[in-house]
Amino acid sequence: MALITLLTDFGTRDEYVGVMKGVIAGIIPDARIVDISHYIEPQNIVHGAFILAAAYPYFPAGTIHVAIVDPGVGGKRRILVVEYDRQRFVVPDNGLIEQVLADGLPLSVVSVEDARYFLTHVSHTFHGRDIFAPVAAHLAAGLPMTDLGPAVDHRGMVSGVVPRCGFSTPRCVEGKVVAVDRFGNLMTNIDADSIDRLAQRIAGQTMVVILGERPIGPIVASYDRVARQTPLAVIGSRGLLEISVNCGNARQVFNARINDRVRVRRA
Amino acid sequence: MALITLLTDFGTRDEYVGVMKGVIAGIIPDARIVDISHYIEPQNIVHGAFILAAAYPYFPAGTIHVAIVDPGVGGKRRILVVEYDRQRFVVPDNGLIEQVLADGLPLSVVSVEDARYFLTHVSHTFHGRDIFAPVAAHLAAGLPMTDLGPAVDHRGMVSGVVPRCGFSTPRCVEGKVVAVDRFGNLMTNIDADSIDRLAQRIAGQTMVVILGERPIGPIVASYDRVARQTPLAVIGSRGLLEISVNCGNARQVFNARINDRVRVRRA
Amino acid sequence: MALITLLTDFGTRDEYVGVMKGVIAGIIPDARIVDISHYIEPQNIVHGAFILAAAYPYFPAGTIHVAIVDPGVGGKRRILVVEYDRQRFVVPDNGLIEQVLADGLPLSVVSVEDARYFLTHVSHTFHGRDIFAPVAAHLAAGLPMTDLGPAVDHRGMVSGVVPRCGFSTPRCVEGKVVAVDRFGNLMTNIDADSIDRLAQRIAGQTMVVILGERPIGPIVASYDRVARQTPLAVIGSRGLLEISVNCGNARQVFNARINDRVRVRRA
Repeated sequence: MALITLLTDFGTRDEYVGVMKGVIAGIIPDARIVDISHYIEPQNIVHGAFILAAAYPYFPAGTIHVAIVDPGVGGKRRILVVEYDRQRFVVPDNGLIEQVLADGLPLSVVSVEDARYFLTHVSHTFHGRDIFAPVAAHLAAGLPMTDLGPAVDHRGMVSGVVPRCGFSTPRCVEGKVVAVDRFGNLMTNIDADSIDRLAQRIAGQTMVVILGERPIGPIVASYDRVARQTPLAVIGSRGLLEISVNCGNARQVFNARINDRVRVRRA
Repeated sequence: MALITLLTDFGTRDEYVGVMKGVIAGIIPDARIVDISHYIEPQNIVHGAFILAAAYPYFPAGTIHVAIVDPGVGGKRRILVVEYDRQRFVVPDNGLIEQVLADGLPLSVVSVEDARYFLTHVSHTFHGRDIFAPVAAHLAAGLPMTDLGPAVDHRGMVSGVVPRCGFSTPRCVEGKVVAVDRFGNLMTNIDADSIDRLAQRIAGQTMVVILGERPIGPIVASYDRVARQTPLAVIGSRGLLEISVNCGNARQVFNARINDRVRVRRA
Repeated sequence: MALITLLTDFGTRDEYVGVMKGVIAGIIPDARIVDISHYIEPQNIVHGAFILAAAYPYFPAGTIHVAIVDPGVGGKRRILVVEYDRQRFVVPDNGLIEQVLADGLPLSVVSVEDARYFLTHVSHTFHGRDIFAPVAAHLAAGLPMTDLGPAVDHRGMVSGVVPRCGFSTPRCVEGKVVAVDRFGNLMTNIDADSIDRLAQRIAGQTMVVILGERPIGPIVASYDRVARQTPLAVIGSRGLLEISVNCGNARQVFNARINDRVRVRRA
């Protein structure tokens, strides 16, 4: 059974997402479609990149992921199909797939160019409907990705868009807030590996997490290790450092937003 | 495979939409259900009419569209099944189908009256659950629409609800904003045909689009023809004039809303 | 055909719900999944309890309902599978199922403990993905619920969380607002039975509904019994007393919120 996921910044107020599903149903009526999110911040590729990377590992082999955060729609940016980890991703070539590929290389990449697999009329403003949806549906129906267009060397893909965390000093990991969830939890780009390396460098001394200039406290194992309404930092369910307030809303408490600086260092 | 779409003003905070899907699943478990939108402005029939008309052409023949923006629920308004363009629409008789039928006549229309196809208990306030959902499910399961109630002459349907654009002077097309999307793009009821006719009348002179009293500029082919944060007008992906701000939010920039006047005339 | 519903406070901005669907699809690819709501007020068990109780009766026998409003995630609270009314519910043991069981006893209850049916790595913060989703999928695929863990005596389930309406005086039923819908309608926990008993006690005298200290008026049969913009009280589509404003928004008009006191008494 074919499974297609959708991740966009289209919202669900408008008919855009439903129309994409109509196009898919016209090509492969029994495809299963799962919405990952349609509330990526408008045109925020970094936000989309982290949500896509957080979600895709939980889908079965063979899933086709359509991800569209695409400020360049109607311009010259390419559309790619990327095969990685036994899944395929239909994405604009703008860095949106970059976090998915943080730890590996794609098995193959093609540039989507054969208009036989698009809608007959391709608009300048809605490639989700006119290109991404029908291409994903044809893939789900069994079209080999190599039929869509020429192979692309992965080194030629747009890169460097997603910010990486790093050591700003030998004893300080620095990153930023890359997503804010419904509960006001702040997801950062600081991964568990970097925290582990810092722990080795400071040899068991206490770490402290700092949001902007505000100390949050140490990294704890779970929310219930601190009192209610108390800030905490935790390696979240995505393997990334998150800043939360137990039974509260960290976004509101800290007036935080995407791109805020986060550091972890010796206390 | 049966395909049913849902378009309502119910939102998704509450259980209303899920309950309709439960009712459908109880009658035809393998029907596919696609949400077009549940965020039509509450009780705004015009908004719903344009979103329905924008969406339905992208669904395959045989699709059953359930559209509910229904201020008259519990009163005497009829519920209709309308067959048009090889699709069927289950709608209140209040103008919601009017934009779909802007260019043609329905193949057939029936008034939904046979309570055998409703839930046993019909409430005064939630016909979506009690009538629309089970009727759509029975249609999807193969019930002929003529079994639901008497034929209706299409001339007897409620009409005149959806505002049409028109020439307010020989060289000025006037319409209004009928929807605002997540990006703040303003969708108008001014169609490409009217723009074409105006172009002929003014014989190649420059056109200008005016929102309220504020000039927006000429109609361009795509967003990237203007600088970032610059207003533009474009024939959007729905074949209707839209007012946007490139990489910006026209609703916010112009403090615009549904029903605002829009004119296109010689510059 | 297996049918699974999801009711959470996760929202749909983030990837949480999509990820749960990915986990389910990996175990039982052809399960049908219906969203009831993901906009339960964060961690508001009472709100979730009423929405679940309002929704489940409209789903066919055999449906598996996953309901997650779970402030205790990562702590010691149990996860239960409850069989009731030919449906099964996968819920935290925190009162979320209580309103469903308001009129009856569960056929059987088990405590979910066998980690073979969880994801391999169980996080502290996202049991929806790691436990609830795979457990529901295994049930949908045919796993007997007794394989998940030991039977639980229903008398040992957490209870007393959902507030009941009651007679505060022999001629006054008192309850509270338990949900507010998109239209601003206020759903209370005052059921039709209590209203019927009050009607008998006051033997046909007029009843009045009072929100906080503000009289709303009598209980009417449907919205159209009062003028536009006029407040009303009605036994809503869920069998519970609701306070509305005809063609208006009761939440805004009365500045009302969940937990506000509501009384019904002789006028």
